[in-house]
Amino acid sequence: MFGRLNHVGVATPSIVKSREHYTRLFGAACVGEAFDLPEQGVRVCFVDTGNTQLELIEPLNDASPVAGFLARNPAGGQHHLCFEVTDLNAAITDLTATGARVLGTPRIGAHGTRIVFLHPRDMGGVLVELMETPDGGH
Amino acid sequence: MFGRLNHVGVATPSIVKSREHYTRLFGAACVGEAFDLPEQGVRVCFVDTGNTQLELIEPLNDASPVAGFLARNPAGGQHHLCFEVTDLNAAITDLTATGARVLGTPRIGAHGTRIVFLHPRDMGGVLVELMETPDGGH
Repeated sequence: MFGRLNHVGVATPSIVKSREHYTRLFGAACVGEAFDLPEQGVRVCFVDTGNTQLELIEPLNDASPVAGFLARNPAGGQHHLCFEVTDLNAAITDLTATGARVLGTPRIGAHGTRIVFLHPRDMGGVLVELMETPDGGH
Repeated sequence: MFGRLNHVGVATPSIVKSREHYTRLFGAACVGEAFDLPEQGVRVCFVDTGNTQLELIEPLNDASPVAGFLARNPAGGQHHLCFEVTDLNAAITDLTATGARVLGTPRIGAHGTRIVFLHPRDMGGVLVELMETPDGGH
């Protein structure tokens, strides 16, 4: 079963400008530093909303999947929803049994635990990321 | 300043099918009953993720703003992000001063408190709903 919403992924053409935007909206204390995830082809930054986070995502190159999203949505926008699961392998087994398509194989995500993406066509049009619960809890 | 993420709005062509989908993912106890918001032209249903909610939204008629979204995204998908603010009037004053456009005037939302939407072009491509914090807290 899916658990808490770990974060909402928000694509942006400029993480620098987005950090300024969210600093105005939430205050500087809620906006983290940006860092690269080269193996995923993105630069990210987390914004803390108190109960969950926004993950700002800027592509590092044109090969990044987020680059395609920005080609269709140049201003940026909501990219994915990430839910926590306690056992990623069990979740993949259960979802695959219902016909849901897993995109690729699990890899280490921005929070240091294993993640995987699910095809939006099997998730009501929503690109879903599953993340093994960080730190054994929240 | 913006506060917690009250919910993620997810448009769907069939709230009945989406309730079945999210019941499989989160369990029946997390999926509320659907109800109409005729003044907004939508039927909605909340899914509890523990720390926040998803608001499933099906248009009641072709005049609903969500009908246009579904015309562009027939499978449904992420529609808006709703953040809580303690004082909606103050938030509108502050945002308007920065040039952000407020869509229409405040009205009563699904949680019984005043809401307003902000233009996605001023919010990094994200359609943002602001909601006066329900019940004086969370």
